[in-house]
Amino acid sequence: MKALEGIRVVDLGHVLAAPTCTMFLADLGAEVIHIEPAHGDDSREFGPFAGERDKNRSGYFVSLNRNKKSLVLDLKSDKGKQILTKLIKKSDVIVENYRPTTMKKLGFSWGAIKEINPRIVYASICGFGHDSLPGYDTRPAYDMVAQGYSGLMSITGPEGGPPCRVGSSVGDIIAGHQAAIGILAALINREKTGRGQHYDGSMVDGLFCMLENASVRYTLTGEIPCSLGSAHPSIVPFQAFRTKDEAWFIAAIGNDALWAKYCKVIEREDLTNDPRFRTNPLRTKNKTELIPVLDVEMAKKTRQEWSAIFDTAALPYSPINNMREICEDPHIKYRGMLVEIDQPRAGRMKIAGSPIHLSETPGKVYAPAPLLGEHSEEVLKDILGYSQEETDKLKKKGIINNEV
Amino acid sequence: MKALEGIRVVDLGHVLAAPTCTMFLADLGAEVIHIEPAHGDDSREFGPFAGERDKNRSGYFVSLNRNKKSLVLDLKSDKGKQILTKLIKKSDVIVENYRPTTMKKLGFSWGAIKEINPRIVYASICGFGHDSLPGYDTRPAYDMVAQGYSGLMSITGPEGGPPCRVGSSVGDIIAGHQAAIGILAALINREKTGRGQHYDGSMVDGLFCMLENASVRYTLTGEIPCSLGSAHPSIVPFQAFRTKDEAWFIAAIGNDALWAKYCKVIEREDLTNDPRFRTNPLRTKNKTELIPVLDVEMAKKTRQEWSAIFDTAALPYSPINNMREICEDPHIKYRGMLVEIDQPRAGRMKIAGSPIHLSETPGKVYAPAPLLGEHSEEVLKDILGYSQEETDKLKKKGIINNEV
Repeated sequence: MKALEGIRVVDLGHVLAAPTCTMFLADLGAEVIHIEPAHGDDSREFGPFAGERDKNRSGYFVSLNRNKKSLVLDLKSDKGKQILTKLIKKSDVIVENYRPTTMKKLGFSWGAIKEINPRIVYASICGFGHDSLPGYDTRPAYDMVAQGYSGLMSITGPEGGPPCRVGSSVGDIIAGHQAAIGILAALINREKTGRGQHYDGSMVDGLFCMLENASVRYTLTGEIPCSLGSAHPSIVPFQAFRTKDEAWFIAAIGNDALWAKYCKVIEREDLTNDPRFRTNPLRTKNKTELIPVLDVEMAKKTRQEWSAIFDTAALPYSPINNMREICEDPHIKYRGMLVEIDQPRAGRMKIAGSPIHLSETPGKVYAPAPLLGEHSEEVLKDILGYSQEETDKLKKKGIINNEV
Repeated sequence: MKALEGIRVVDLGHVLAAPTCTMFLADLGAEVIHIEPAHGDDSREFGPFAGERDKNRSGYFVSLNRNKKSLVLDLKSDKGKQILTKLIKKSDVIVENYRPTTMKKLGFSWGAIKEINPRIVYASICGFGHDSLPGYDTRPAYDMVAQGYSGLMSITGPEGGPPCRVGSSVGDIIAGHQAAIGILAALINREKTGRGQHYDGSMVDGLFCMLENASVRYTLTGEIPCSLGSAHPSIVPFQAFRTKDEAWFIAAIGNDALWAKYCKVIEREDLTNDPRFRTNPLRTKNKTELIPVLDVEMAKKTRQEWSAIFDTAALPYSPINNMREICEDPHIKYRGMLVEIDQPRAGRMKIAGSPIHLSETPGKVYAPAPLLGEHSEEVLKDILGYSQEETDKLKKKGIINNEV
């Protein structure tokens, strides 16, 4: 049993935001039909590749599109549009992350889509949103634009240093999560009304509302939050320290009871009741005096030694794992967060698993990612009722493609 | 009409991960009953405050708990446990973000919860997950621990510099999104089975699977991705530059056609076909030669001048907005992403709105955040059928509290 069994999704997405959204839906058992142009989703060209560079060997594409079907369809042709119309009629959800004007140009505005199928839930994801001020709807937006525009980059990076991009494209990724939430809520609502609706996602909105208390710090106090490296704005010490072996180690000393324990394990009990450092507000105030002292202490042991000591004392800590360390981590393996799949053409490959750990209907990697156009014929014949002759004709004309 | 009308959620969350999850549910119309200890959710102590420091004036708490009800309940007392049991019987969802052992100690393991109400969906969110290797279930975890452990911090920060924390607590926030997805999928599944299930969320899992291609870069090639400041690993130029007015400006030149246009607007058409920079792979390879040249060019105009020029040329760009700039941004206002509310005790306050823009049942800020214990009596009388006399007695004994 899968949670979303029986839900059919038309996925016009490319690269990251919409594919992240439909990855959740596919992992939960929805039938996701990823419609691609003849040259394929752009991310088929993104590395790393399993072996040589090839549209069917991109680790980037495979990670995001496991469990989905691929239909190569020429949406610029009338025949292609006709096929999309038929698919919309037979589907529950349609998702895309084009610029706001693209779907209208293709003839599939929300008005047109709901005329074809009033029960369908239509999710669009773009940089600034479909409903936007003049000029914003045509403005090109990548993840990095959303990270910069939303304010996120202004609070990420070393203290006093240049703003940094979050190392993965969280603008796309968070917008993809939010679209999945919107779609599932709309499906629940449809049970009562029988009608679908339009979800108008924006990467900038998605990041802006997830800046924790940064926005309210400005709106309530006029203060402009800034970047603080690995440190916390109001808890001290709560940051990464350099260890003897030149690794990084996070000590997260969240309250005064932990502070007393921490002073003990670093063998500096003289600091516990030091009038400059006794309470968290004092430590925050006198941070520039305290941190250099702790830097010296933390450099006296290796990351592994500190880990053992913090473990025993039940003090919150973490190594800063690099990608090798986390991919080899026993806990990640135990949780099923790295899944080995047999990917046709590419071979055995390890990709990240689903975080949706439900006891009865967990998100899962059921199937590899589709080869380009792998399911073109199948979709037309099984879902839309086309004959072999008709699909052959469409292939000959280049309307669909199944060249795998 | 609200999407989740009729869904009742027992929210045992505190601070960030579970409250983020239930914020989505409440914004979409679920009735969320936030159960707090007598001293309140810890985040009531987190700044900024509207006026003086006060449990009912925390901008942090208000941002996350708008639209919810507050029931102050002593879960350590038998009477308190009895009341929670009755609430579980009458609810659809229960969410918490304690350490994995806490609910068991209170007598509310998943086994016990589903015995009380087999239809309920139970979502737990913690650092490493309930189902985990020995030792991990008792390990204390803050957001920063998840950011460090998951690998995210190892790819965030200046190139060659120290690892940086993402400026907002994305470990909690992404886990909160994923829990909302899990809960909604489980509610859809319940329509078919009549049974609830347990969602076992982990902050480390949640971040690890959202590192884009970082994990597959390691698993496929053995390469260890590292931090790159504001730059993109495989697109050049795609980063922030310092402008004449010492602001930061992102130029996101995603392909060779944009490169040609870009060279034109910076008046360096000599670079377009320079054999070192002609294509993106060449620009990536010769980045250390190219970027200093562009640094010089980009420093010749102000951020505002570049914005106008890039706009006209339809080149992807963004200023790096600070929190003042984004909070005053007309587009954010137009999208309803900053909402003004009348918060009892605290006064008028601007908080971030909902990103779930659904055309018929949008996520919305319907009501302010609850005062501590504001709905204790109401919940007991209206939902559980207690008499005034009974609630008065429970108040006297300190089992519930309604001191607002």
